[in-house]
Amino acid sequence: MAKELKELTPREENYSQWYNDLVVKADLAESSAVRGCMVIKPYGYAIWEKIQRKLDDMFKETGHVNAYFPLFIPKSFLSKEADHVEGFAKECAVVTHYRLKTNPDGTGVVVDPDARLEEELIVRPTSETIIWNTYKGWIQSYRDLPILCNQWANVVRWEMRTRLFLRTAEFLWQEGHTAHATEAEAMEEARRMLDVYATFAEEFMAVPVVKGVKSANERFAGAVETFCIEAMMQDGKALQAGTSHFLGQNFAKAFDVQFVNKDNKLEYVWATSWGVSTRLMGALIMAHSDNNGLVLPPKVAPIQVVIVPIYKNAEQLDAISGKVAPIVDELKRLGISVKYDNADNKKPGWKFSEYELKGVPVRLAMGGRDLENGTVEVMRRDTLEKETRPMEGIVEYVQTLLDEIQQNIFRKAVAFRDSVTRDVPDYETFKSEIEKGGFLRCYWDGSPEDEDRIKEETKATIRCILLREAETEGKCMLTGRSTKRLVLFARSY
Amino acid sequence: MAKELKELTPREENYSQWYNDLVVKADLAESSAVRGCMVIKPYGYAIWEKIQRKLDDMFKETGHVNAYFPLFIPKSFLSKEADHVEGFAKECAVVTHYRLKTNPDGTGVVVDPDARLEEELIVRPTSETIIWNTYKGWIQSYRDLPILCNQWANVVRWEMRTRLFLRTAEFLWQEGHTAHATEAEAMEEARRMLDVYATFAEEFMAVPVVKGVKSANERFAGAVETFCIEAMMQDGKALQAGTSHFLGQNFAKAFDVQFVNKDNKLEYVWATSWGVSTRLMGALIMAHSDNNGLVLPPKVAPIQVVIVPIYKNAEQLDAISGKVAPIVDELKRLGISVKYDNADNKKPGWKFSEYELKGVPVRLAMGGRDLENGTVEVMRRDTLEKETRPMEGIVEYVQTLLDEIQQNIFRKAVAFRDSVTRDVPDYETFKSEIEKGGFLRCYWDGSPEDEDRIKEETKATIRCILLREAETEGKCMLTGRSTKRLVLFARSY
Repeated sequence: MAKELKELTPREENYSQWYNDLVVKADLAESSAVRGCMVIKPYGYAIWEKIQRKLDDMFKETGHVNAYFPLFIPKSFLSKEADHVEGFAKECAVVTHYRLKTNPDGTGVVVDPDARLEEELIVRPTSETIIWNTYKGWIQSYRDLPILCNQWANVVRWEMRTRLFLRTAEFLWQEGHTAHATEAEAMEEARRMLDVYATFAEEFMAVPVVKGVKSANERFAGAVETFCIEAMMQDGKALQAGTSHFLGQNFAKAFDVQFVNKDNKLEYVWATSWGVSTRLMGALIMAHSDNNGLVLPPKVAPIQVVIVPIYKNAEQLDAISGKVAPIVDELKRLGISVKYDNADNKKPGWKFSEYELKGVPVRLAMGGRDLENGTVEVMRRDTLEKETRPMEGIVEYVQTLLDEIQQNIFRKAVAFRDSVTRDVPDYETFKSEIEKGGFLRCYWDGSPEDEDRIKEETKATIRCILLREAETEGKCMLTGRSTKRLVLFARSY
Repeated sequence: MAKELKELTPREENYSQWYNDLVVKADLAESSAVRGCMVIKPYGYAIWEKIQRKLDDMFKETGHVNAYFPLFIPKSFLSKEADHVEGFAKECAVVTHYRLKTNPDGTGVVVDPDARLEEELIVRPTSETIIWNTYKGWIQSYRDLPILCNQWANVVRWEMRTRLFLRTAEFLWQEGHTAHATEAEAMEEARRMLDVYATFAEEFMAVPVVKGVKSANERFAGAVETFCIEAMMQDGKALQAGTSHFLGQNFAKAFDVQFVNKDNKLEYVWATSWGVSTRLMGALIMAHSDNNGLVLPPKVAPIQVVIVPIYKNAEQLDAISGKVAPIVDELKRLGISVKYDNADNKKPGWKFSEYELKGVPVRLAMGGRDLENGTVEVMRRDTLEKETRPMEGIVEYVQTLLDEIQQNIFRKAVAFRDSVTRDVPDYETFKSEIEKGGFLRCYWDGSPEDEDRIKEETKATIRCILLREAETEGKCMLTGRSTKRLVLFARSY
């Protein structure tokens, strides 16, 4: 019974259902009573906390500070930047009233028509407008610059089709908003944060990413240039894992934020914004997991090592617990999170599949024979390999193994990504290759309209223009014109 | 000029204006373009982060985990618990639409009348309803209990009169929501979290608090019993700094959350909820600060030590910097946050008043004479005392001094609180004493209506019923009836 409850739809059978099963059964998240909004369950939130803590440290190391800006944005603010309103004003939660009252018929509550707001408030879909309206009061001179703020917050975008973590009406994220005295400094900041995101994704989440620039079609509404990191999921679809925008002077102009520069002249401020969200959880799950459940890189795992005793009676459990106690202490001393699961209302087999489902990187099991032999069984989640090791030196072995697992998960993801990345010379080949998924790398000199047509015909989009151009020219896969520009196409989440 | 900008309205002249000046000028927070919503500025947020981190650690040490529940609550949920709807449904932000569209006349955007929600959504004023609706799916058996979740979140209560940190439409908080198999266990949890809050307030924020129980009039809407910690501000008004509610089975019944107990019988689940908010920032500021600005207990100070060089030329600055560098390193090694402010566009006097304003607990200053003598000037913010100390051993001295400052700030606050806490035997005395502020301790056996009348006549309310009754009976200050129940009255924030 318990075993069956944990079974996932196999990936090969229905990838999308496998994903949903996994998110729910591994206790990561679930849908809520509010359409499109999710509940992030404690185990899922513990992973998000690890992501947050590490990113926050990286932001602070690069000179940023946290602040908090209002949840609500006056409707008129959204219209101040012409492109921005097109991108964000459409699907959003609108607050129109500030009071309920008891229903005259005595049943429940109704909106009080007398409590209508003069100007409607939008629940922030992103905060450029309210933040630049605030920065206006903070910036007079070049001495007030740069401003390097980040905010951890919830945002709402009224998505019609939602999927847990990947696309939800409300999601959690961080949004950095920086203000600079020069264009070069702002551009450098946008690139720096792209690098921070890439390093974080690869070294912490073990998710390899391609760094690039968005084409005009996919650019953030209000940005001059959008940099992004793109990851490849196991079903061959790409996932945008983070973006960093060079906003030029667009928002400074929209909110009239000028400063006196060193030459004593008034100038508009230069801006960036950059963000990653709980979507990263989706990337983490889909990049590594298998039909047994989650596969977590040790650095993001809330529990890195679980120890399960296998015993016939209370005395044997006591003997095992006695052997395990110093291992637990030593692992903790090394900063490794460890759980000794001696709960007696569940069988070892149930526990094994539970911790596999939850992606705990290393499992140690100890039974009667291990007691006699001074051994312990070690299982690594990434390969599911088991081996029996001597108790002696087990802590050092586990520590090394965790590093090896972190690296192996990354290597595996890189190998997969590389195996599904192909060069495509022309549109005919493109159309057949795109059916197999993966990244298609092409020379590209087409127009935004060409991109739209390809999207319509193949459901694929330019995920990014590669930061480094080709050394020699090649022919655009669609137009045949010569260009050095290389792009990656893919179908995407 | 710069000096004047930092000057605060003296507390004696206008306490309320002093508070507002301080919050804004010390860069803690400011009002935003959205009525009643504040911007928490980086320096203020850094203090909040320290509060968050410490509380989060204390919650985890007591077995709690974090999770995240939706921002929105379906309107009908609020009506399910009869008292709750009375308390919370009245002043809240109501989302009625999910889309904007371009104004037909081409100017900006308007609410799309076709995008009306079937059921309005309320921006959470507190999350009992959405959480208990979720817990219904998590709880079947006593084996699923207890659930010990906390959430860090923003909430919105449409307050008409707002003050930075103390009462804002949107504020940040944590809300713990726990589910238990027995009444005793839930009551124990509610009391445990009250103790956690009290310990945190006293040991971390250096704010002494009285633990007590709310009278029925002041109870949380939906609670059976509300425990609270009450602090005394320097103007003689009380501030409720945290609450912990024993909710009985009220929300379990409202959302039909039952479990199979050990006797295999269906029973409603027992609940608690508990929270503290950015209001704590207001308590922190008003409990300790003075006419020169913030006074921060070292444990919450983002910068614990600032070092200011006083120099005539570049060589002297170099010489000072050379002496300061190892001090900075050693302080950091001890986990003490230190800033060496060698910015050359501001004078030492300007820096001195800036760091006083911002409440940095210890200031070290080093000038030419100190270089010659091997000394350093030490200023402690709590008493503003200065002394010249030998460089030798300065790091150890500062470390000890920080502890002493933390304790002194607490002792001072306790002494003040005790000095304004008086026993009051009858209502005549009460009415004259309440004008002087502070806590009035009385025997109390009055009714909710009596409380209302006292509030109307004196603006004072029962802040709490003391947890420990008097050993001998006394006469209720209003009714003259004998009782052992002691209460604290005060005017409050």
